[in-house]
Amino acid sequence: MDEARAPTAYEGDAVLARLLAAAGSPYEPAALRALIAGVLAAPPGPSPDAWMVLVAPQISPELAAQLRALAASLGQAAPAKELAPAERLARLRAELARQGIQGFLVPRADEHQGEYVPARAQRLAWLTGFTGSAGIAAVLEDKAALFTDGRYTLQGRAQVDGSLYELRHMIEAPPAEWLAASLGRGAALGYDPWLHTPGEVERYAAAAERAGARLQALAQNPIDAIWTDRPPAPLAPVVPHPLCFAGKSAAEKRQEIAAALAKEGVDAAVLTAPDSIAWLLNIRGGDVSHTPLPLSFAILRCDATVDLFIDRRKLAPGLAVHLGAAVRPSDPQSLGAALDRLGAEGARVQADPAASAAWVFDRLAASGARIRRTVDPCQLPKACKNSVELDGARAAHRRDGAALTRFLAWLAVTAPAGGLTEIAAADRLEELRRGGENFRDLSFPTISGAGANGAIVHYHATQESERRLEPGTLYLVDSGAQYLDGTTDVTRTVAIGAPSAEMRDRFTRVLKGHIALALCRFPKGTTGSQLDALARQALWDTGLDYDHGTGHGVGSYLGVHEGPQRISKLPNTQALMPGMIVSNEPGYYRTGAFGIRIENLVIVTEQAAPAGAERDLLGFETLTLAPIDRALIEPKLLDGREIAWLDAYHARVASELAPLVDDVTAAWLTAATRPLSQG
Amino acid sequence: MDEARAPTAYEGDAVLARLLAAAGSPYEPAALRALIAGVLAAPPGPSPDAWMVLVAPQISPELAAQLRALAASLGQAAPAKELAPAERLARLRAELARQGIQGFLVPRADEHQGEYVPARAQRLAWLTGFTGSAGIAAVLEDKAALFTDGRYTLQGRAQVDGSLYELRHMIEAPPAEWLAASLGRGAALGYDPWLHTPGEVERYAAAAERAGARLQALAQNPIDAIWTDRPPAPLAPVVPHPLCFAGKSAAEKRQEIAAALAKEGVDAAVLTAPDSIAWLLNIRGGDVSHTPLPLSFAILRCDATVDLFIDRRKLAPGLAVHLGAAVRPSDPQSLGAALDRLGAEGARVQADPAASAAWVFDRLAASGARIRRTVDPCQLPKACKNSVELDGARAAHRRDGAALTRFLAWLAVTAPAGGLTEIAAADRLEELRRGGENFRDLSFPTISGAGANGAIVHYHATQESERRLEPGTLYLVDSGAQYLDGTTDVTRTVAIGAPSAEMRDRFTRVLKGHIALALCRFPKGTTGSQLDALARQALWDTGLDYDHGTGHGVGSYLGVHEGPQRISKLPNTQALMPGMIVSNEPGYYRTGAFGIRIENLVIVTEQAAPAGAERDLLGFETLTLAPIDRALIEPKLLDGREIAWLDAYHARVASELAPLVDDVTAAWLTAATRPLSQG
Repeated sequence: MDEARAPTAYEGDAVLARLLAAAGSPYEPAALRALIAGVLAAPPGPSPDAWMVLVAPQISPELAAQLRALAASLGQAAPAKELAPAERLARLRAELARQGIQGFLVPRADEHQGEYVPARAQRLAWLTGFTGSAGIAAVLEDKAALFTDGRYTLQGRAQVDGSLYELRHMIEAPPAEWLAASLGRGAALGYDPWLHTPGEVERYAAAAERAGARLQALAQNPIDAIWTDRPPAPLAPVVPHPLCFAGKSAAEKRQEIAAALAKEGVDAAVLTAPDSIAWLLNIRGGDVSHTPLPLSFAILRCDATVDLFIDRRKLAPGLAVHLGAAVRPSDPQSLGAALDRLGAEGARVQADPAASAAWVFDRLAASGARIRRTVDPCQLPKACKNSVELDGARAAHRRDGAALTRFLAWLAVTAPAGGLTEIAAADRLEELRRGGENFRDLSFPTISGAGANGAIVHYHATQESERRLEPGTLYLVDSGAQYLDGTTDVTRTVAIGAPSAEMRDRFTRVLKGHIALALCRFPKGTTGSQLDALARQALWDTGLDYDHGTGHGVGSYLGVHEGPQRISKLPNTQALMPGMIVSNEPGYYRTGAFGIRIENLVIVTEQAAPAGAERDLLGFETLTLAPIDRALIEPKLLDGREIAWLDAYHARVASELAPLVDDVTAAWLTAATRPLSQG
Repeated sequence: MDEARAPTAYEGDAVLARLLAAAGSPYEPAALRALIAGVLAAPPGPSPDAWMVLVAPQISPELAAQLRALAASLGQAAPAKELAPAERLARLRAELARQGIQGFLVPRADEHQGEYVPARAQRLAWLTGFTGSAGIAAVLEDKAALFTDGRYTLQGRAQVDGSLYELRHMIEAPPAEWLAASLGRGAALGYDPWLHTPGEVERYAAAAERAGARLQALAQNPIDAIWTDRPPAPLAPVVPHPLCFAGKSAAEKRQEIAAALAKEGVDAAVLTAPDSIAWLLNIRGGDVSHTPLPLSFAILRCDATVDLFIDRRKLAPGLAVHLGAAVRPSDPQSLGAALDRLGAEGARVQADPAASAAWVFDRLAASGARIRRTVDPCQLPKACKNSVELDGARAAHRRDGAALTRFLAWLAVTAPAGGLTEIAAADRLEELRRGGENFRDLSFPTISGAGANGAIVHYHATQESERRLEPGTLYLVDSGAQYLDGTTDVTRTVAIGAPSAEMRDRFTRVLKGHIALALCRFPKGTTGSQLDALARQALWDTGLDYDHGTGHGVGSYLGVHEGPQRISKLPNTQALMPGMIVSNEPGYYRTGAFGIRIENLVIVTEQAAPAGAERDLLGFETLTLAPIDRALIEPKLLDGREIAWLDAYHARVASELAPLVDDVTAAWLTAATRPLSQG
């Protein structure tokens, strides 16, 4: 908040009503309270007053002060009495009994199957206390279990009452197995069809069948019935994403995708992924943390028009003009009726069974529509960035690299004293990023892990968990930002004091994997799954590995994780294509000791053809610019080609970043990037 | 045939009837003629008279002579007048009109979805003339098309009348696209549900829907209605596969798989893959070429009993004892009724949607059975060979390597003269293999390709196509055999005269890929898809690649191609597991010039843990033993690790094979395997 602005007291509804009327606002105080409740349910954006554009096009200083005061008072309203987890579970069981069912599934997913979910949809966290980004609870009459993946075993144990929930590993002891063994014959297991994909529903149906039970779709989510102080849907302003960043107009995008649908004989596509809709319409919002998404649904017709299902209160002034007449906003509640109409028209409608809720398919089937199950048509074009987006990414990465390098230079001076904490380090890095042009937000909560905390892949420092950066340890920092012109994501691992021989050996093997990917050339049509082993071989050779993917797609001022491409052990049929942005992030983690990860973002690019080449080759252009800690490299483990890559990368980092940093940082940068071949 | 035995004339049914009765045979001459028709519809086995065990347990010399004479006369019966392809197509269209449908799909697959199909099921070849191992024809009222993959483009053009069939590439111009564009609105497209998997049916149904047409299952295959001289089902003797080769009793296998079914709550599994049934029951047959399969279906119950649907005439004497009381043979025609009974029992029945005909699923669904769609339960245990099977494989590969090495030594002397032809070379190699202990058959038709023919990946030499092995060219020979104790598959590429620098460069890059796989170590859980790129990188680097998989699974005296493991660009979720046999066969092909492939079979084995290892490592033990042509290696392209691998491999080849070959071959072997490090 602006320190110069003194807080003003709220002067009452009469004063507010007068100010609203004078500003030409359509709101009265009661409706405004509902709007503000939605605003408060969204994460705070970079400008605390930005939401006021939703109230009136011009806000006088007096009105602004009153709005600020009202929002502050609503934000500080005493929360309803906190229920203990046992009481929540008991109330859920009572509700299940009332609905006549014997069990219920509580996934982490929301109605959009997204990674970041609004407070309103955090049902799993509300019920169990577990806040990880992947998990599902199964609640039966006499037992309950929480399933999380390996990343969250420790967190689950810390957050969840083991006397209420069995804690299980999602892969090693899948929910379907547990359900098949635990459900009684004849039992009905309920689920909310908005919160599961059709494939998940099939899996749970099969599990229930094995137990002689059955799976039952519920019209009302039992959690919603008992969660009395559930937040409203978030209402952050939806704004245009200008052409100077998007590189292609929304009209062009709509027409291209619609033409592809028409060619397949498809009348309409149902879009339920907010990032696809944001990309298609060149809009951005702020309904969830770290990803500038307006939550919405859409139906794209083969005539290139769009029905956009969105709370119209959150459309910023001028957005209707930006959207144009071919985009028809309507209430989210009217989606079902729109699907019914498609059925009545006998339309052929496509939806993505991997990304859309079973509810959509059920409703389409009931409406009589002919359903085509296929991937979201925006996914691939969104992933292949155009030249404007790529130039934006390069610019954003220069700025981001300068901020990170200033942080690393500061760390080199500050850390050896031994007093620096993980949170203080992360705060410092965030502060340096915030100063950058076009900065909007972090792209995810910074992972700032010292010593053994660095070995926790998705570590989040808290005051209870954080460590100091101590000599003889490693410090791992994985961070990124949302800039209007691009999204960044970078990990560096730094030796605090002198590293051990083991640390250097492991770091160098991780680096070999990173370089193997950075240098590889491959024919068009190659998938990330095919390349994954290149990043692991140096670790495999000595009996080591890491339990996460090697690379994920990254959006353009959108999700820091986006598909369809991946570099991963898991099979993936999506070829890497020119313009895709993907991370290159091998790692190694010794539990209880240290963690290592080296992450750059890269662009898939076309490569010049060698003499005699018969295939078109692709390779990677590195976007991320920041020194890789020379103190952690064991040169004997690198071959000439690897050393040449590192030296060329460091030379580029130095030349691109030196002009952007202060003199002290520049001097440190020169030393940090001197060629390895010169010892 | 035994040259010493003079052919005897057939003396008439009365004489035969008397001899049959005297031998205690259940056959009369008429039934015997039907049996012999089935015998003649199977490929000739290694012993021409082996089929006679099906007639009576003891065959007198007189009876044997009469049986031989009768079979010879039946085998020489004048074939029905050959119909021209245009006439066949016209008759098919007339039959479609009679059945009231507007189109029909003719796949290459048989009722078992296998790779080798009996003459009776070669409907695609009968209709179109195309004999490749992958393809499908679509016949509509006014047009027809044949779809093949890239391997068969040239062969398709040579064999098929382009005025009758459009020739299309299955991947680049998929049948579904063509059908969607070609079917008229309201048309019915017929298919034989025995010849397609459920997934294929779904795809064609969607294509038909796009055209406003519909897909229709046919109770009778229209080809069968017009193919008047269609051969009967093959009847080759089904014999036990003894424990000394199988390593585990059929009773144990049945009990283990049945226990796994019971654990999943499954009452029965429908098995339609003949190799799964052969493995499960430790039986082998000879119904198709090159793979010792008895064609059959089976239902494995969770009580470890089996209903075996097989023509009982082909069960060799004593087989009933070998099978035991828990295995109940019945007629293939009774499979449907058995599925109906499962439904009536309310059984939960599993079948493999990737490998079983849609007919099975349709019938199960109609019967009311609860269907579990999952992989054939024999597939994985069959792939993981036990120690007896692995010892058998090692022994078979020593014998096979000795035969191949004798061939290569002979070739080194014979080829430089320039007169040797592809077929003569292949015949010589086959002759050398036939002398080996436990030899039963080749495991596939030898690929013997000189010069430009070597660049045709699935080349089959004919008198029209074959070339001479000429100086300055490469000769590629891909061959293998079925031994009772193991199946082999090996490819060597040999320089005839002096190779060019380009040939040496390409060969060495292929060799680098081969060695990269041979040397790699990887954690348990790794799939072949993850490793595939290691075999391609040296080619990719210079803009080259090859258009086939790097490795396929191999059976134990079973299919030379078997799943579920593969080393391939295509996604595959099956981890490589200890005991699996897989090929390592990168290649490079310059169309019109030369082909290179280096193929060894390898066993997936556990590796000793390096110091500090945290993961259990797997790697490969090479089975195949034969020199790799040193004249084609450019040592400058190899690093020290690669040279060490080659020299150690050659040392092993020399020491294991020298005792098994003649002196001249041994001398050649010594030179052919001298260390590269010694120049």
